[in-house]
Amino acid sequence: MSVASQAPDYIRAISPYQPGKPTSELAREMGIPEAGIVKLASNENPLGMGARAREAVVAALSGSARYPDGNGFALKSALSRRFHVDPERIVLGNGSNDVLELVARAFLGPGRSAVFSRYAFAVYPLAVNAVGARGIEVAAKAYGHDLKAMAAAIVPDTRVVFIANPNNPTGTFLSGEDIEAFLAQVPADVLVVLDEAYTEYLDPARRYDSLAWLAHYPNLLVSRTFSKAYGLAGLRVGYGIAHPDVADLMNRVRQPFNVSSVALAAAEAALGDEEFLAQTARINERGMMQITDALRRLGLEWIPSAGNFVTFKAGDSARINAALLRQGVIVRPIGSYGMPEWLRVSIGLPEENARFIAALEQALD
Amino acid sequence: MSVASQAPDYIRAISPYQPGKPTSELAREMGIPEAGIVKLASNENPLGMGARAREAVVAALSGSARYPDGNGFALKSALSRRFHVDPERIVLGNGSNDVLELVARAFLGPGRSAVFSRYAFAVYPLAVNAVGARGIEVAAKAYGHDLKAMAAAIVPDTRVVFIANPNNPTGTFLSGEDIEAFLAQVPADVLVVLDEAYTEYLDPARRYDSLAWLAHYPNLLVSRTFSKAYGLAGLRVGYGIAHPDVADLMNRVRQPFNVSSVALAAAEAALGDEEFLAQTARINERGMMQITDALRRLGLEWIPSAGNFVTFKAGDSARINAALLRQGVIVRPIGSYGMPEWLRVSIGLPEENARFIAALEQALD
Repeated sequence: MSVASQAPDYIRAISPYQPGKPTSELAREMGIPEAGIVKLASNENPLGMGARAREAVVAALSGSARYPDGNGFALKSALSRRFHVDPERIVLGNGSNDVLELVARAFLGPGRSAVFSRYAFAVYPLAVNAVGARGIEVAAKAYGHDLKAMAAAIVPDTRVVFIANPNNPTGTFLSGEDIEAFLAQVPADVLVVLDEAYTEYLDPARRYDSLAWLAHYPNLLVSRTFSKAYGLAGLRVGYGIAHPDVADLMNRVRQPFNVSSVALAAAEAALGDEEFLAQTARINERGMMQITDALRRLGLEWIPSAGNFVTFKAGDSARINAALLRQGVIVRPIGSYGMPEWLRVSIGLPEENARFIAALEQALD
Repeated sequence: MSVASQAPDYIRAISPYQPGKPTSELAREMGIPEAGIVKLASNENPLGMGARAREAVVAALSGSARYPDGNGFALKSALSRRFHVDPERIVLGNGSNDVLELVARAFLGPGRSAVFSRYAFAVYPLAVNAVGARGIEVAAKAYGHDLKAMAAAIVPDTRVVFIANPNNPTGTFLSGEDIEAFLAQVPADVLVVLDEAYTEYLDPARRYDSLAWLAHYPNLLVSRTFSKAYGLAGLRVGYGIAHPDVADLMNRVRQPFNVSSVALAAAEAALGDEEFLAQTARINERGMMQITDALRRLGLEWIPSAGNFVTFKAGDSARINAALLRQGVIVRPIGSYGMPEWLRVSIGLPEENARFIAALEQALD
């Protein structure tokens, strides 16, 4: 008997996550120079890292032969001041992906289940399956969360419900009122993970104060990331905010040094860089119009998106995607989400969006 | 019922890992300026990050708003060339701590057990407990691994054995012959994790080629880190090398972007910096003599160490440690390892070692 054959069945059944194609890989495959490639595949910030975050990383390098502060004192203090929450409510993650996995590891396991929506973030079922728990996928409503159906799907062994708002990869949005009404229906011993990875892109009119709900719902965890609007995807840092007892359990299964010293420093600096966030929102708003205008002109259906990406119906998406790749444009096929006819494109800089639009026109020809 | 009370018993039973005190924390507590503190508590490289690694990080920053390459193509290629192993044998980790956890998650779980030695690295029982598996702790021989007793401790549900060589926190060393003989005794369906976090510090006469054993032992995993000799503890990157089937399962439970783009770049550069490694070894050898000479002069017992640290019997270690801290010197108490009378000191720069020695003399007075 080999070691591998002895791994638990639920481990051997996992299919690895399919990340967006790195530009370096496409450049190798296609023989294109990397600088000529437009990557609109992973919902990253096209402005790059902000100058203040960059300076903080360079300053932190002289101490980076040392282990990071495993308690993340400085970043937690900054988050605490910024969002008016106690530091003991905060769990830092190696990206918010880590936060989601800590939830699964601390609260799920064989004999337990988690509820999530169809077309929601692929990491939910991955994290659930990796700990041997059962995923309960709920049918979507207009490609978004059907909260009524999700509440009804909770069974006695359910310990976690995942909600993404805005949702990735479809960009759908739930109002604060709807989420709060959902919280009121969920049993107190079921953790509701509200994944707000794209919350900084919300139109001010749509914003809601999920952190205020923590006072009434000790079974709520709000998860956020520095990978999107803050422009730090490569450095890996995210956070969860929850009841101190929930945070404490997650911190017990957390790797002691899960967030690097440069990520801690960059996130702290980025958090205070309101100007960069505002610029990011402006670029995104304009780019979203640029791309949806083109989709309208090309007669393509898309799902209205509250994030920094938009998902459109390409029809023969494999052919369209291949034609885009040949032109050095990387978007994200989402067949693995059960949406084989759709492609997701991230909002880039105006010139990147134009490259995508031109390449798409040519691909459709 | 609260969410937290519903977490599995094995999660609620975990005590968090106690990291070394960060200098920033001691500075806050004692009101000492951070620059005046000597930290010899976490077996870090006192030279700091090498210049080549540092340059690589700065160069990687312009792309760090992008997600890292989740497959780590460039670093795996560099490791493959350097160690003559196929890339599909390699698993990259967010530090080797991550590699150890991936082992636990892929191969352990409720109803399974893992064998490790008393006084071995604290992360083994933590990782085992966090997945609900049972730890089998084997009595030590002269503060090191008793391989005969460890082989005898394997039971039918054992899936993993952890061996640290050199061992942390005691610095003990097992010869290549002894480890190879152990491998020959272990059932083929039990994974042997050979944790070589400190292998770069070995005297050339003691080195052994564990990677050559992979051809005969598909149940061997060699784990290494860039946190120690390579000077990258703050950036978080380590790796495991194993049979491709073992690596594949670990990659399935691995977070898609577990290693940051700057860590990938720094590790690739550090791997080629032989001069920095050689300088690190020289500084360590001299510092080890400096400290052990002082311990001898002071009449203190110590455990001969093959790593970049040495563990000595301080007697009333709480009092000695407090006196060291008051003088701005941080070492590591290892009471949590069941060695309450001992302290572990990392080898620093000559002047740091001298500060430690002077502070220790004063503390003993």
